[in-house]
Amino acid sequence: MKLYNFPRSSASYRVRIACNLKGIEVEKVLVNFREDAQRSPDYLALNPSGLTPALVEEDGFALSQSIAILKYLDHLAPEPRLFPVDPRGEARVMEMVQVIASDIHPLNNLRVLKYLKNVLGVDEDAKNAWYAHWIALGFEGLEQQVRRAGGGPYCFGETLSAADLCLVPQMFNARRFEVPLEAYPKLVEIDARLQLIEAFAQAAPEA
Amino acid sequence: MKLYNFPRSSASYRVRIACNLKGIEVEKVLVNFREDAQRSPDYLALNPSGLTPALVEEDGFALSQSIAILKYLDHLAPEPRLFPVDPRGEARVMEMVQVIASDIHPLNNLRVLKYLKNVLGVDEDAKNAWYAHWIALGFEGLEQQVRRAGGGPYCFGETLSAADLCLVPQMFNARRFEVPLEAYPKLVEIDARLQLIEAFAQAAPEA
Repeated sequence: MKLYNFPRSSASYRVRIACNLKGIEVEKVLVNFREDAQRSPDYLALNPSGLTPALVEEDGFALSQSIAILKYLDHLAPEPRLFPVDPRGEARVMEMVQVIASDIHPLNNLRVLKYLKNVLGVDEDAKNAWYAHWIALGFEGLEQQVRRAGGGPYCFGETLSAADLCLVPQMFNARRFEVPLEAYPKLVEIDARLQLIEAFAQAAPEA
Repeated sequence: MKLYNFPRSSASYRVRIACNLKGIEVEKVLVNFREDAQRSPDYLALNPSGLTPALVEEDGFALSQSIAILKYLDHLAPEPRLFPVDPRGEARVMEMVQVIASDIHPLNNLRVLKYLKNVLGVDEDAKNAWYAHWIALGFEGLEQQVRRAGGGPYCFGETLSAADLCLVPQMFNARRFEVPLEAYPKLVEIDARLQLIEAFAQAAPEA
Protein backbone atom coordinates (compact mmCIF):
# COMPACT_ATOMS: atom_id res chain seq x y z
CA MET A 1 0.00 0.00 0.00
CA LYS A 2 1.05 3.56 -0.62
CA LEU A 3 0.27 6.58 1.50
CA TYR A 4 0.47 9.84 -0.37
CA ASN A 5 1.18 12.43 2.28
CA PHE A 6 2.87 15.64 3.30
CA PRO A 7 4.80 15.70 6.61
CA ARG A 8 3.14 18.81 8.07
CA SER A 9 -0.39 18.06 6.89
CA SER A 10 -2.24 17.11 10.05
CA ALA A 11 -4.67 14.93 8.12
CA SER A 12 -1.65 12.94 6.86
CA TYR A 13 -0.21 12.86 10.38
CA ARG A 14 -3.43 11.22 11.70
CA VAL A 15 -3.14 8.41 9.17
CA ARG A 16 0.58 7.92 9.79
CA ILE A 17 -0.19 7.35 13.49
CA ALA A 18 -2.93 4.86 12.57
CA CYS A 19 -0.63 2.83 10.31
CA ASN A 20 2.07 2.75 13.00
CA LEU A 21 -0.40 1.69 15.70
CA LYS A 22 -1.84 -1.09 13.58
CA GLY A 23 1.52 -2.20 12.23
CA ILE A 24 0.43 -1.60 8.64
CA GLU A 25 3.41 -1.19 6.33
CA VAL A 26 2.89 1.60 3.83
CA GLU A 27 5.21 3.11 1.29
CA LYS A 28 5.12 6.85 1.94
CA VAL A 29 4.98 9.04 -1.13
CA LEU A 30 5.65 12.74 -0.68
CA VAL A 31 3.08 15.13 -2.14
CA ASN A 32 4.97 18.39 -2.13
CA PHE A 33 2.58 21.19 -1.24
CA ARG A 34 5.33 23.76 -1.75
CA GLU A 35 5.27 22.81 -5.44
CA ASP A 36 1.47 22.42 -5.56
CA ALA A 37 1.95 18.72 -6.37
CA GLN A 38 -1.48 18.01 -4.85
CA ARG A 39 -3.00 19.73 -7.90
CA SER A 40 -0.98 17.79 -10.52
CA PRO A 41 -3.05 15.71 -13.00
CA ASP A 42 -1.45 12.45 -11.77
CA TYR A 43 -2.41 13.14 -8.19
CA LEU A 44 -5.89 14.40 -9.08
CA ALA A 45 -6.50 11.08 -10.85
CA LEU A 46 -5.96 9.36 -7.50
CA ASN A 47 -7.70 11.95 -5.40
CA PRO A 48 -9.97 14.36 -7.29
CA SER A 49 -10.11 16.63 -4.24
CA GLY A 50 -6.42 17.44 -4.51
CA LEU A 51 -5.70 17.15 -0.80
CA THR A 52 -3.61 14.77 1.29
CA PRO A 53 -3.61 12.08 2.42
CA ALA A 54 -4.60 9.38 -0.04
CA LEU A 55 -4.22 5.67 0.59
CA VAL A 56 -3.74 3.47 -2.47
CA GLU A 57 -4.04 -0.30 -2.24
CA GLU A 58 -2.23 -2.82 -4.42
CA ASP A 59 -5.27 -3.27 -6.67
CA GLY A 60 -5.53 0.48 -7.25
CA PHE A 61 -8.35 1.31 -4.83
CA ALA A 62 -7.53 4.91 -3.88
CA LEU A 63 -9.13 6.52 -0.86
CA SER A 64 -8.81 10.09 0.38
CA GLN A 65 -10.11 11.98 3.43
CA SER A 66 -8.31 11.05 6.62
CA ILE A 67 -11.43 10.16 8.61
CA ALA A 68 -12.67 7.85 5.87
CA ILE A 69 -9.21 6.26 5.83
CA LEU A 70 -9.12 5.78 9.62
CA LYS A 71 -12.51 4.10 9.50
CA TYR A 72 -11.43 1.89 6.60
CA LEU A 73 -8.21 0.86 8.35
CA ASP A 74 -10.34 -0.63 11.14
CA HIS A 75 -11.55 -3.14 8.54
CA LEU A 76 -8.11 -3.83 7.04
CA ALA A 77 -6.40 -4.31 10.41
CA PRO A 78 -8.89 -4.43 13.29
CA GLU A 79 -6.38 -4.17 16.18
CA PRO A 80 -6.17 -1.80 17.92
CA ARG A 81 -9.57 -0.48 16.93
CA LEU A 82 -9.81 3.25 16.27
CA PHE A 83 -13.60 3.32 16.53
CA PRO A 84 -15.34 1.28 19.26
CA VAL A 85 -17.76 -1.45 18.12
CA ASP A 86 -20.41 -0.34 20.61
CA PRO A 87 -22.67 2.19 18.80
CA ARG A 88 -22.62 4.85 21.51
CA GLY A 89 -18.86 4.50 21.88
CA GLU A 90 -18.40 4.84 18.14
CA ALA A 91 -20.70 7.87 18.18
CA ARG A 92 -18.77 9.61 20.97
CA VAL A 93 -15.44 9.03 19.23
CA MET A 94 -16.82 10.25 15.91
CA GLU A 95 -18.21 13.33 17.70
CA MET A 96 -14.77 14.24 19.06
CA VAL A 97 -13.12 13.45 15.74
CA GLN A 98 -15.47 15.82 13.94
CA VAL A 99 -14.81 18.66 16.38
CA ILE A 100 -11.22 18.60 15.17
CA ALA A 101 -11.74 17.43 11.58
CA SER A 102 -14.72 19.68 10.80
CA ASP A 103 -14.81 22.54 13.33
CA ILE A 104 -11.13 23.39 13.78
CA HIS A 105 -8.76 22.01 11.18
CA PRO A 106 -10.51 23.04 7.92
CA LEU A 107 -10.35 26.68 9.01
CA ASN A 108 -6.63 26.59 9.70
CA ASN A 109 -5.50 24.66 6.68
CA LEU A 110 -2.59 25.99 4.65
CA ARG A 111 -4.86 26.79 1.68
CA VAL A 112 -7.12 28.87 3.92
CA LEU A 113 -4.23 30.78 5.47
CA LYS A 114 -2.95 31.49 1.96
CA TYR A 115 -6.36 32.78 0.90
CA LEU A 116 -6.57 35.05 3.94
CA LYS A 117 -3.14 36.50 3.15
CA ASN A 118 -3.07 36.57 -0.64
CA VAL A 119 -6.69 37.25 -1.55
CA LEU A 120 -8.08 39.08 1.47
CA GLY A 121 -4.83 40.85 2.37
CA VAL A 122 -5.04 39.83 6.02
CA ASP A 123 -1.85 40.69 7.94
CA GLU A 124 0.22 38.29 10.05
CA ASP A 125 -1.31 39.27 13.41
CA ALA A 126 -4.89 38.97 12.19
CA LYS A 127 -4.06 35.64 10.57
CA ASN A 128 -2.64 34.31 13.83
CA ALA A 129 -5.68 35.59 15.74
CA TRP A 130 -7.93 33.76 13.26
CA TYR A 131 -5.92 30.59 13.78
CA ALA A 132 -6.10 30.83 17.56
CA HIS A 133 -9.81 31.74 17.53
CA TRP A 134 -10.98 28.51 15.88
CA ILE A 135 -8.71 26.36 17.99
CA ALA A 136 -9.98 28.01 21.18
CA LEU A 137 -13.64 27.55 20.20
CA GLY A 138 -13.11 23.91 19.29
CA PHE A 139 -10.88 23.03 22.23
CA GLU A 140 -13.31 24.63 24.71
CA GLY A 141 -15.95 22.12 23.70
CA LEU A 142 -13.53 19.23 23.31
CA GLU A 143 -12.11 19.72 26.81
CA GLN A 144 -15.64 19.26 28.18
CA GLN A 145 -16.34 16.27 25.95
CA VAL A 146 -13.16 14.57 27.12
CA ARG A 147 -14.12 15.18 30.76
CA ARG A 148 -17.60 13.80 30.12
CA ALA A 149 -15.99 10.66 28.63
CA GLY A 150 -13.99 10.04 31.82
CA GLY A 151 -11.22 12.64 31.78
CA GLY A 152 -8.45 10.38 30.51
CA PRO A 153 -6.10 8.65 30.19
CA TYR A 154 -7.27 8.97 26.57
CA CYS A 155 -9.82 11.25 24.90
CA PHE A 156 -12.43 8.52 25.15
CA GLY A 157 -11.69 7.46 28.72
CA GLU A 158 -9.85 4.17 29.00
CA THR A 159 -9.98 3.53 25.27
CA LEU A 160 -7.38 4.73 22.79
CA SER A 161 -9.29 5.87 19.70
CA ALA A 162 -9.36 7.90 16.50
CA ALA A 163 -10.00 10.97 18.68
CA ASP A 164 -6.47 10.66 20.05
CA LEU A 165 -5.08 10.42 16.53
CA CYS A 166 -6.78 13.72 15.72
CA LEU A 167 -5.82 15.44 18.99
CA VAL A 168 -2.05 15.07 18.70
CA PRO A 169 -1.67 16.71 15.25
CA GLN A 170 -4.08 19.47 16.28
CA MET A 171 -2.07 20.17 19.45
CA PHE A 172 1.09 20.18 17.34
CA ASN A 173 -0.45 22.90 15.16
CA ALA A 174 -1.65 24.86 18.18
CA ARG A 175 1.84 24.94 19.64
CA ARG A 176 3.41 25.82 16.32
CA PHE A 177 1.20 28.93 16.22
CA GLU A 178 1.77 29.60 19.94
CA VAL A 179 -1.90 29.29 20.82
CA PRO A 180 -2.37 29.44 24.63
CA LEU A 181 -3.40 26.04 25.98
CA GLU A 182 -3.79 26.61 29.75
CA ALA A 183 -7.58 26.53 29.48
CA TYR A 184 -7.50 22.90 28.30
CA PRO A 185 -5.57 20.99 30.98
CA LYS A 186 -7.08 17.60 30.09
CA LEU A 187 -6.22 17.95 26.43
CA VAL A 188 -2.67 19.00 27.33
CA GLU A 189 -2.30 16.07 29.71
CA ILE A 190 -3.66 13.51 27.24
CA ASP A 191 -1.55 14.87 24.41
CA ALA A 192 1.62 14.65 26.54
CA ARG A 193 0.83 11.03 27.40
CA LEU A 194 0.14 10.12 23.76
CA GLN A 195 3.37 11.64 22.54
CA LEU A 196 5.29 9.10 24.61
CA ILE A 197 3.79 6.26 22.55
CA GLU A 198 6.20 5.23 19.81
CA ALA A 199 3.50 5.00 17.12
CA PHE A 200 2.65 8.65 17.73
CA ALA A 201 6.24 9.90 18.10
CA GLN A 202 7.38 8.24 14.88
CA ALA A 203 4.50 9.77 12.91
CA ALA A 204 5.39 13.36 13.85
CA PRO A 205 6.32 15.76 11.03
CA GLU A 206 9.88 16.08 12.28
CA ALA A 207 10.41 12.29 12.43
CA MET B 1 -36.01 11.72 21.10
CA LYS B 2 -35.34 15.40 20.62
CA LEU B 3 -33.47 17.05 17.80
CA TYR B 4 -32.06 20.46 18.68
CA ASN B 5 -31.75 22.23 15.41
CA PHE B 6 -31.90 25.44 13.41
CA PRO B 7 -33.79 25.41 10.10
CA ARG B 8 -31.03 26.94 7.96
CA SER B 9 -28.14 25.06 9.53
CA SER B 10 -27.11 22.58 6.88
CA ALA B 11 -25.77 20.17 9.48
CA SER B 12 -29.27 20.14 11.04
CA TYR B 13 -30.81 19.74 7.59
CA ARG B 14 -28.75 16.55 6.98
CA VAL B 15 -30.08 14.98 10.18
CA ARG B 16 -33.67 16.03 9.47
CA ILE B 17 -33.48 14.20 6.14
CA ALA B 18 -32.07 11.11 7.89
CA CYS B 19 -34.88 11.03 10.45
CA ASN B 20 -37.49 11.40 7.72
CA LEU B 21 -35.95 8.66 5.58
CA LYS B 22 -35.73 6.23 8.47
CA GLY B 23 -39.14 7.16 9.85
CA ILE B 24 -37.68 8.17 13.21
CA GLU B 25 -40.01 10.48 15.10
CA VAL B 26 -38.16 13.32 16.77
CA GLU B 27 -39.41 16.34 18.65
CA LYS B 28 -37.72 19.30 17.00
CA VAL B 29 -36.41 21.95 19.35
CA LEU B 30 -35.40 25.29 17.86
CA VAL B 31 -31.96 26.60 18.76
CA ASN B 32 -32.20 30.22 17.75
CA PHE B 33 -28.88 31.32 16.27
CA ARG B 34 -30.18 34.85 15.89
CA GLU B 35 -30.32 35.04 19.70
CA ASP B 36 -27.07 33.06 20.17
CA ALA B 37 -29.08 30.32 21.92
CA GLN B 38 -26.42 27.79 20.87
CA ARG B 39 -24.10 29.42 23.42
CA SER B 40 -26.58 29.38 26.32
CA PRO B 41 -25.50 27.37 29.43
CA ASP B 42 -28.45 24.97 29.04
CA TYR B 43 -27.52 24.13 25.48
CA LEU B 44 -23.80 23.91 26.20
CA ALA B 45 -24.60 21.30 28.87
CA LEU B 46 -26.06 19.15 26.08
CA ASN B 47 -23.49 20.03 23.47
CA PRO B 48 -20.28 21.59 24.76
CA SER B 49 -19.35 22.63 21.22
CA GLY B 50 -22.28 25.02 21.01
CA LEU B 51 -23.28 24.07 17.50
CA THR B 52 -26.34 22.38 16.00
CA PRO B 53 -27.61 19.77 15.66
CA ALA B 54 -27.77 17.72 18.84
CA LEU B 55 -29.79 14.54 19.23
CA VAL B 56 -30.99 13.73 22.74
CA GLU B 57 -32.39 10.31 23.58
CA GLU B 58 -34.99 9.54 26.27
CA ASP B 59 -32.30 8.46 28.74
CA GLY B 60 -30.38 11.71 28.28
CA PHE B 61 -27.66 10.49 25.89
CA ALA B 62 -26.86 13.66 23.94
CA LEU B 63 -24.92 13.49 20.71
CA SER B 64 -23.70 16.34 18.51
CA GLN B 65 -21.91 16.53 15.15
CA SER B 66 -24.14 15.66 12.23
CA ILE B 67 -21.86 12.97 10.76
CA ALA B 68 -21.60 11.20 14.11
CA ILE B 69 -25.39 11.39 14.36
CA LEU B 70 -25.94 9.97 10.85
CA LYS B 71 -23.62 7.06 11.65
CA TYR B 72 -25.39 6.48 14.97
CA LEU B 73 -28.84 6.53 13.36
CA ASP B 74 -27.78 3.56 11.24
CA HIS B 75 -27.63 1.59 14.51
CA LEU B 76 -30.92 2.94 15.89
CA ALA B 77 -32.88 2.35 12.70
CA PRO B 78 -30.92 0.35 10.12
CA GLU B 79 -33.23 0.88 7.14
CA PRO B 80 -32.49 2.51 4.79
CA ARG B 81 -28.79 2.42 5.59
CA LEU B 82 -26.88 5.67 5.23
CA PHE B 83 -23.47 3.99 5.19
CA PRO B 84 -23.00 0.72 3.26
CA VAL B 85 -21.98 -2.37 5.27
CA ASP B 86 -19.27 -3.27 2.76
CA PRO B 87 -16.00 -1.62 3.93
CA ARG B 88 -15.06 -0.07 0.59
CA GLY B 89 -18.58 1.19 0.10
CA GLU B 90 -18.61 2.72 3.56
CA ALA B 91 -15.21 4.28 2.84
CA ARG B 92 -16.36 5.83 -0.45
CA VAL B 93 -19.47 7.29 1.17
CA MET B 94 -17.48 8.65 4.10
CA GLU B 95 -14.99 10.17 1.63
CA MET B 96 -17.77 12.08 -0.15
CA VAL B 97 -19.38 13.06 3.14
CA GLN B 98 -16.11 14.53 4.37
CA VAL B 99 -15.60 16.58 1.21
CA ILE B 100 -18.75 18.45 2.15
CA ALA B 101 -18.57 18.22 5.95
CA SER B 102 -14.85 19.04 6.27
CA ASP B 103 -13.69 20.74 3.07
CA ILE B 104 -16.64 22.97 2.16
CA HIS B 105 -19.18 23.57 4.86
CA PRO B 106 -16.94 24.56 7.81
CA LEU B 107 -15.54 27.43 5.75
CA ASN B 108 -18.97 28.81 4.87
CA ASN B 109 -20.62 28.49 8.23
CA LEU B 110 -22.52 31.47 9.63
CA ARG B 111 -19.94 31.97 12.41
CA VAL B 112 -17.15 32.14 9.83
CA LEU B 113 -18.99 34.62 7.62
CA LYS B 114 -19.60 36.76 10.71
CA TYR B 115 -15.90 36.64 11.60
CA LEU B 116 -14.93 37.67 8.06
CA LYS B 117 -17.29 40.62 8.20
CA ASN B 118 -17.08 41.76 11.82
CA VAL B 119 -13.48 40.99 12.73
CA LEU B 120 -11.63 41.11 9.42
CA GLY B 121 -13.81 43.80 7.86
CA VAL B 122 -14.33 41.82 4.65
CA ASP B 123 -16.92 43.44 2.37
CA GLU B 124 -19.96 41.72 0.87
CA ASP B 125 -18.40 40.96 -2.52
CA ALA B 126 -15.24 39.47 -1.04
CA LYS B 127 -17.33 37.44 1.39
CA ASN B 128 -19.41 36.04 -1.47
CA ALA B 129 -16.25 35.25 -3.46
CA TRP B 130 -14.87 33.37 -0.44
CA TYR B 131 -18.12 31.41 -0.18
CA ALA B 132 -18.08 30.49 -3.86
CA HIS B 133 -14.37 29.64 -3.85
CA TRP B 134 -14.63 26.83 -1.29
CA ILE B 135 -17.76 25.40 -2.87
CA ALA B 136 -16.09 25.37 -6.29
CA LEU B 137 -12.97 23.64 -4.98
CA GLY B 138 -15.00 21.02 -3.15
CA PHE B 139 -17.58 20.44 -5.88
CA GLU B 140 -14.85 20.06 -8.54
CA GLY B 141 -13.53 17.01 -6.69
CA LEU B 142 -16.95 15.73 -5.69
CA GLU B 143 -18.22 15.80 -9.27
CA GLN B 144 -15.35 13.48 -10.23
CA GLN B 145 -15.92 11.23 -7.22
CA VAL B 146 -19.59 10.87 -8.09
CA ARG B 147 -18.69 9.96 -11.68
CA ARG B 148 -16.15 7.41 -10.45
CA ALA B 149 -18.88 5.87 -8.27
CA GLY B 150 -21.14 5.35 -11.29
CA GLY B 151 -22.47 8.80 -12.11
CA GLY B 152 -25.88 8.43 -10.48
CA PRO B 153 -28.73 8.09 -9.86
CA TYR B 154 -27.29 8.84 -6.39
CA CYS B 155 -23.89 10.12 -5.24
CA PHE B 156 -22.78 6.56 -4.57
CA GLY B 157 -24.15 5.01 -7.75
CA GLU B 158 -27.27 2.92 -7.23
CA THR B 159 -27.18 3.36 -3.45
CA LEU B 160 -28.83 6.22 -1.60
CA SER B 161 -26.41 7.18 1.18
CA ALA B 162 -25.24 9.78 3.68
CA ALA B 163 -23.45 11.51 0.80
CA ASP B 164 -26.85 12.43 -0.67
CA LEU B 165 -27.95 13.82 2.70
CA CYS B 166 -24.92 16.10 2.66
CA LEU B 167 -25.23 17.09 -1.00
CA VAL B 168 -28.75 18.52 -0.88
CA PRO B 169 -28.13 21.04 1.96
CA GLN B 170 -24.84 22.05 0.36
CA MET B 171 -26.54 22.67 -3.00
CA PHE B 172 -29.22 24.66 -1.19
CA ASN B 173 -26.50 26.89 0.25
CA ALA B 174 -24.76 27.21 -3.10
CA ARG B 175 -27.94 28.40 -4.75
CA ARG B 176 -28.73 30.77 -1.90
CA PHE B 177 -25.38 32.48 -2.53
CA GLU B 178 -25.84 32.28 -6.31
CA VAL B 179 -22.75 30.14 -6.84
CA PRO B 180 -22.50 29.01 -10.50
CA LEU B 181 -23.17 25.28 -10.78
CA GLU B 182 -22.83 24.55 -14.53
CA ALA B 183 -19.45 22.89 -14.00
CA TYR B 184 -21.04 20.14 -11.89
CA PRO B 185 -23.79 18.63 -14.05
CA LYS B 186 -23.87 15.31 -12.18
CA LEU B 187 -24.24 17.01 -8.81
CA VAL B 188 -27.02 19.22 -10.20
CA GLU B 189 -28.81 16.22 -11.70
CA ILE B 190 -28.56 14.11 -8.53
CA ASP B 191 -29.68 17.00 -6.33
CA ALA B 192 -32.73 17.62 -8.52
CA ARG B 193 -33.68 13.93 -8.29
CA LEU B 194 -33.23 13.86 -4.51
CA GLN B 195 -35.37 16.92 -3.99
CA LEU B 196 -38.35 15.04 -5.39
CA ILE B 197 -38.13 12.52 -2.53
CA GLU B 198 -40.55 13.48 0.23
CA ALA B 199 -38.07 12.82 3.06
CA PHE B 200 -35.74 15.39 1.50
CA ALA B 201 -38.42 17.93 0.58
CA GLN B 202 -39.95 17.92 4.05
CA ALA B 203 -36.57 18.50 5.69
CA ALA B 204 -35.84 21.68 3.75
CA PRO B 205 -35.42 24.93 5.73
CA GLU B 206 -38.56 26.43 4.20
CA ALA B 207 -40.71 23.39 5.10
